[in-house]
Amino acid sequence: MKKIEGGVCAPQGFKASGIHCGVRPNKTKKDLALIVSAVPASAAAVYTTNLVKGAPLIVTKENLKDGKAQVVICNSGNANTCNANGIEIAEQMCELIANELNINKRDVIVGSTGVIGQPLSIDPIKNGIPELVANLSDNGSQIAAAGIMTTDTKLKEIALEFEIDGETCRIGAIAKGSGMIHPNMATMLVFITSDVNIDSALLQKALSNVVKDTFNMISVDGDTSTNDTVAIMANGLANNKKIVTENEGYNTFVQALYTLMTDLSRKIAKDGEGATKLLECKVDGAETKDIARTVAKSVICSSLTKAAMFGADANWGRVLCAIGYSGANVDVTKVDVSFKSAAGSIEVCKNGAGVDFSEEKAKEILLEDEIEILVSLNSGNESATAYGCDLTYDYVKINGDYRT
Amino acid sequence: MKKIEGGVCAPQGFKASGIHCGVRPNKTKKDLALIVSAVPASAAAVYTTNLVKGAPLIVTKENLKDGKAQVVICNSGNANTCNANGIEIAEQMCELIANELNINKRDVIVGSTGVIGQPLSIDPIKNGIPELVANLSDNGSQIAAAGIMTTDTKLKEIALEFEIDGETCRIGAIAKGSGMIHPNMATMLVFITSDVNIDSALLQKALSNVVKDTFNMISVDGDTSTNDTVAIMANGLANNKKIVTENEGYNTFVQALYTLMTDLSRKIAKDGEGATKLLECKVDGAETKDIARTVAKSVICSSLTKAAMFGADANWGRVLCAIGYSGANVDVTKVDVSFKSAAGSIEVCKNGAGVDFSEEKAKEILLEDEIEILVSLNSGNESATAYGCDLTYDYVKINGDYRT
Repeated sequence: MKKIEGGVCAPQGFKASGIHCGVRPNKTKKDLALIVSAVPASAAAVYTTNLVKGAPLIVTKENLKDGKAQVVICNSGNANTCNANGIEIAEQMCELIANELNINKRDVIVGSTGVIGQPLSIDPIKNGIPELVANLSDNGSQIAAAGIMTTDTKLKEIALEFEIDGETCRIGAIAKGSGMIHPNMATMLVFITSDVNIDSALLQKALSNVVKDTFNMISVDGDTSTNDTVAIMANGLANNKKIVTENEGYNTFVQALYTLMTDLSRKIAKDGEGATKLLECKVDGAETKDIARTVAKSVICSSLTKAAMFGADANWGRVLCAIGYSGANVDVTKVDVSFKSAAGSIEVCKNGAGVDFSEEKAKEILLEDEIEILVSLNSGNESATAYGCDLTYDYVKINGDYRT
Repeated sequence: MKKIEGGVCAPQGFKASGIHCGVRPNKTKKDLALIVSAVPASAAAVYTTNLVKGAPLIVTKENLKDGKAQVVICNSGNANTCNANGIEIAEQMCELIANELNINKRDVIVGSTGVIGQPLSIDPIKNGIPELVANLSDNGSQIAAAGIMTTDTKLKEIALEFEIDGETCRIGAIAKGSGMIHPNMATMLVFITSDVNIDSALLQKALSNVVKDTFNMISVDGDTSTNDTVAIMANGLANNKKIVTENEGYNTFVQALYTLMTDLSRKIAKDGEGATKLLECKVDGAETKDIARTVAKSVICSSLTKAAMFGADANWGRVLCAIGYSGANVDVTKVDVSFKSAAGSIEVCKNGAGVDFSEEKAKEILLEDEIEILVSLNSGNESATAYGCDLTYDYVKINGDYRT
């Protein structure tokens, strides 16, 4: 397996584009993105568990009932959520793009991200669609990624190449993250394309399984969005023998999906609102997988730990505290904690109690921009990693006045 | 029932004091507090549910097995948690103060608050105890309250007077809060005194019940401390007929306890680390009490809602979002939301969708320093209130470098 260029356009038969259509007032920001497969593709998705769901999610879920899709259209600047006519607007988006592309309106995955509870006018989207379609290109992944960004500071895309049955296959994705990131079933918006030939039920299974260890292990701020969606289209143009059982080809595909989704999880966490550092909490020695996940996520979610990391302060007591209130049944007297980064690693807690360590060395390690918090529970063989970021002044700044 | 002066010294037979003994390097900060009842008192306490528990909690729990106590001793500056010799140090604190006062060492409630995982030397406490006892006074409540403060900016105390069986009774308390405040069973440190004559089992019952609707409904930062303790001593000197059943006297006492604990909950939330505003989320129309509590707490814990309140931004979509991910089974299409303060009130969401409102008026309301977020679920008759504060630059500042 190797990384390649091209994002969502790397797999055969996919084009993408992005434009500014006017949902956002700021003309320098793209606000509408499109991804199109040359042929109908197997499709699957996972959505937020928030009871308040964006209208586009409801429409997409309905459209994907047959396991098929050909197009992703998504706007930023407005979440189309908690609006009385939200479903109608989301359906209009599907219909308008389907008409322009001459495809079935039920083969559209529709997404929206931005402010909740402000009516979304269809006009700018309607007026923008001809240009959006005219701009479709093999090099359109990055401009589409720009079209779905909100407070993201970095564009997020990736593509991988691998082999199934001797055929070269590809998988690519674009993502947005930043705020309101505490996924449960899915994270903000991730659109994945592949030319693998795979049955849609198996595609759904692969996506649902891998999401548990990747996007669902991210937390930027503990707020689970109303619009989280991860959608995948696999159009079969790689010409591998269609995957219809959990065979070697399926495992290879799952491995590629895991690599891709882990990469994006790290990118989303590192670009969390206001973040200056990526934090990864790696828990091992857990009795069960659930305990490993619960402990890792509790540490990553702790405001106090996040603020300490911002200050490069080796305040490991806050890590212990977060383990203690996680709800997982842990023997805290067996817990070891280390901090690790490109500058080295240092043990700060052994058997639940502090050990002497060099504050100077710890500071040096924590001043790096990618920090691993290593937690050994010493009670079993299961492990899990959670992804997050530090809590900074800028998080407060960004969210103290998001709407203006 | 009326508010009176005197804090923990308002009930008959209680004295208090506070000194700087040297646990903290900063000599201008008190770091050791003492409360003494003239006679042994009925006593009860609730503690953190964090699996990592401060050593003083373990010792206090053991000491209160007989439902009796006479003294509270508590240091700030060091939590005496995650230390190999923590229990030994906490027991020495009990023994030293008991010897000085010539009482039973098992009648001591011991507490510590501050940094986790740094060894606590008994020396400054040992050397300070004679002065601490010499300073005991009827006017010592405020200086004792100062002795337990960490990042608190305001001293927290209250006292109430009420009647049982024609006898005047009093209840008083001191508290500390500020950070690592997301109690579960109890909040940071609250020490309550009363001269009511009550059986210790009923005292425990009253405390455990009232804590659910008061301290357990506070969240400053979602981090449940390792040292949360609420302890109460009732020494019987008011001479009411001893409360041994849930009679009218018991109900009067519970009402006083509720008033006192609600007052302190608001004070702790308003003085949350870095806070500029008290937030109260009042949920009504819930099908069950549990749903009301879960929804109220979810809103109060939302980082995005907290940051919006800091910015006086009426971003009600974040409130809906937090209701949606709370885990409570809520019909989101029935939810109404209003913001209220001394400057008025304004409805911003009706039946789960936005309503037209004056942004100017909303801003005016949200610029006040005590904000109510009113949520009507319109599905039943239960209600609950949660207490929190806004998320500010100063929260990050305080916690980015707490140890230095």
